Amino acid sequence: MKVTTHNLRCTECGTVIAGDAVNSIFRCPQCNGLYDVIYPWSEVAARPAFGPEHNLPNASALRWLWQERRTSTLPVDQSGVWRFRDLLPIVENPENIVTLREGNTPLYELPRCAKSAGVDWLLAKHQGMNPTGSFKDTGMTAALSVAADRGFEWVACASTGNTSAAMAAYAARAGLRSIVFIPDGKIAWGKLSQSMDYGALTIQLKTDFDGCVRILTELVTRFPIYLLNSVNPYRLEGQKTPAFEMLEQLDWQVPDHIVVPGGNLANGSALGKGFMEMRHLGLISRAPKISIIQAEGANPLYRWFTDSNRIMRPVTADTRATAIRIGNPASWRKAANVIDALGGWCEQVSEQEIALAKAQIGAEGVGCEPASAVTFAGLKKLVALGKVNPEERTVLILTGHTLKDSNYTIDYHRGELLTEAENAQISPADQAIHAALRKPPVVLEPDTDVVMRMLESHMKLTQPA
Amino acid sequence: MKVTTHNLRCTECGTVIAGDAVNSIFRCPQCNGLYDVIYPWSEVAARPAFGPEHNLPNASALRWLWQERRTSTLPVDQSGVWRFRDLLPIVENPENIVTLREGNTPLYELPRCAKSAGVDWLLAKHQGMNPTGSFKDTGMTAALSVAADRGFEWVACASTGNTSAAMAAYAARAGLRSIVFIPDGKIAWGKLSQSMDYGALTIQLKTDFDGCVRILTELVTRFPIYLLNSVNPYRLEGQKTPAFEMLEQLDWQVPDHIVVPGGNLANGSALGKGFMEMRHLGLISRAPKISIIQAEGANPLYRWFTDSNRIMRPVTADTRATAIRIGNPASWRKAANVIDALGGWCEQVSEQEIALAKAQIGAEGVGCEPASAVTFAGLKKLVALGKVNPEERTVLILTGHTLKDSNYTIDYHRGELLTEAENAQISPADQAIHAALRKPPVVLEPDTDVVMRMLESHMKLTQPA
Repeated sequence: MKVTTHNLRCTECGTVIAGDAVNSIFRCPQCNGLYDVIYPWSEVAARPAFGPEHNLPNASALRWLWQERRTSTLPVDQSGVWRFRDLLPIVENPENIVTLREGNTPLYELPRCAKSAGVDWLLAKHQGMNPTGSFKDTGMTAALSVAADRGFEWVACASTGNTSAAMAAYAARAGLRSIVFIPDGKIAWGKLSQSMDYGALTIQLKTDFDGCVRILTELVTRFPIYLLNSVNPYRLEGQKTPAFEMLEQLDWQVPDHIVVPGGNLANGSALGKGFMEMRHLGLISRAPKISIIQAEGANPLYRWFTDSNRIMRPVTADTRATAIRIGNPASWRKAANVIDALGGWCEQVSEQEIALAKAQIGAEGVGCEPASAVTFAGLKKLVALGKVNPEERTVLILTGHTLKDSNYTIDYHRGELLTEAENAQISPADQAIHAALRKPPVVLEPDTDVVMRMLESHMKLTQPA
Repeated sequence: MKVTTHNLRCTECGTVIAGDAVNSIFRCPQCNGLYDVIYPWSEVAARPAFGPEHNLPNASALRWLWQERRTSTLPVDQSGVWRFRDLLPIVENPENIVTLREGNTPLYELPRCAKSAGVDWLLAKHQGMNPTGSFKDTGMTAALSVAADRGFEWVACASTGNTSAAMAAYAARAGLRSIVFIPDGKIAWGKLSQSMDYGALTIQLKTDFDGCVRILTELVTRFPIYLLNSVNPYRLEGQKTPAFEMLEQLDWQVPDHIVVPGGNLANGSALGKGFMEMRHLGLISRAPKISIIQAEGANPLYRWFTDSNRIMRPVTADTRATAIRIGNPASWRKAANVIDALGGWCEQVSEQEIALAKAQIGAEGVGCEPASAVTFAGLKKLVALGKVNPEERTVLILTGHTLKDSNYTIDYHRGELLTEAENAQISPADQAIHAALRKPPVVLEPDTDVVMRMLESHMKLTQPA
């Protein structure tokens, strides 16, 4: 096997091939499994191989290097992904790195949510603060850089949401052309606004979503188009870096539990890989548990997790949390491996639980898209089940910005989000929280006394200290 | 006069009062002018007073200190506003600082836009990458911290857009309650989705926008509500910090020209203040010119600038760049002073020029809201007029994220944004750029050969290198 900076290993049958043995076809020819990127130093069986032959300093030197880069003005150092490039040596020529200064996302305390869930300590790592408003940017900067490094001029994905927005932005940045494949039919313009703004070409195929993936998969075997769907293993290399960044932000104090939304399941897989690599390299002495939360209407991993035979069966997905409305997740095996390796749990949450959780996160001044809110809704369940103890330190991964789905927020505050049946299932205690958080506009006469009376009666206005 | 960390000086009559002499009333009682925040070391007439009595190290020590803070994990150090807190000592108790890790916004090269405008070097400082998606966050973290520091429990503004979103987020963060006043009538839900998500109360008054401001201004004289409209001078203290951050990112090499959108005119005023303070303190030896660009339909500063009598007359504002649809800008005098003090120019741009500029910025993979795009449209005019030379180093200030106005992008790509009359005014050269950038979806049969032929014919698909 030719020596490259990295290899690819099939997550199903374990076959290992050189990193440059495939270009745009990311399924194992033996078994159709997905690949993981592996490095000379990341083989869990072996001890990590530090030293110049692997361009890998030891743990404390790495920590120091990453901190020093934060004071640099170089774009690759300002990137919250490429600052950790020692652990993702996937690009031959560093000049081909495509960055929008992704990463560097905030870690917010959520004191009121913590109290509501009954835990002492709760943080949120907000990946929606990335340049295009979702966690997909951390993966796209990695995979798009590989595309540029290998000389591709075209990239493509089948997606109507956050993936296409991220792909289009990074492709434009690199001067590459991007194509978004979507099913024909009633077009969801709002979801496409970003990829159109960043100059992507949208092709509507007269078929369904699986048909789009099929055509695209065939296309890349015949044409030099780089495939950026989540089967691309380099996307996960970028998506593992928030684990590094989080630990740095926590002064290398490992949290106990990470809670991640589960849609296509690449995100939890990537974070798990990041934590396991850090543990293997001695950057941390133990890894946190990773729990994955799905919407009840798009719960194939939850079903697998609770199935005594552990068989994965695709479902017909239906949830208003559109970013995780996925019935046949590509990365389910990787995610299952992460839950098994690190511990953690899989839960499902209802539409009304998602709506309440999103409003509670918003009321902390943070905000997120609905799919992100499943983490907090799930945490409440994990605490109730005893899977998270009150003194455990938990970090929620928020995946998208609140601006990604304004309509959801509007429908919530207008009282038009949930059906009567869904509303009927809300407990009195949760009804009270909804009542405090839902804020439909109040119409008043333009008179200061009228406004004052309204404020006094509704809100016990107090004098400043 | 009591000694405080800062004073307030009327920009109209020059009267100076102590910083704590007013709480929520931000108009000079003598002349109704707005206040500027001034410090012992910021008096332009005097030499800067460094040293421990002002808590102000000298220039090189400040630069070193600010760089060191970038490696810190403290929230106030991770904030791109409070990292420069030495130059905005407006909060008595630092524990009252309210931050969402604002600032730290990227400085992007725009090589294709540079070529299109005929300049050698062009950067964009993207303030739309702030937590709520607009530059308003840098001002709100400052003013909200003052509100918390002075013990207010309520904050309010009259706004339907970026200001209310930022206010609501920071208020929620601090545990304060926020009220958004808007005129009654057809409610623009989309614009309110963020402030509702962050838990603000919306009050619709049966009056127009000026009527809302009037009621709110009276309300704060009678009730302990902190006023967060742009008359609040502390907002500008936060909004000056992107000037510091930009210089740090440029390794203290001062650019020649800054181009800013002109709406309420606080932004250009604040950046000008930031540059003048840096020059006064010896952090830089000269300040850049600041040019302000308005939409033709909301151009009071442009009219003032081109009026030989220099009289400010409000206009009835009309532009699709909603964030700068302001006919009677509160901070016009401050902005006029900045243009006079630093040089620079004021220009206006048409709706079709804004649309083209936004599409060009988007095609760089950056994206922005329409109001931000006036900067690039204006730059082209400044170059044509000889006000910016091709070798001058220019930085555009992008003020809002593309997600702030998805509908504008959608209408553009559907060909429904501009009227026939507006389209008719586009030059053939610009028509060609529009044709290359506008990407309405293409509908195709689900057949790989069909897709291949389409790609070949439209785009000269080439083999990878």
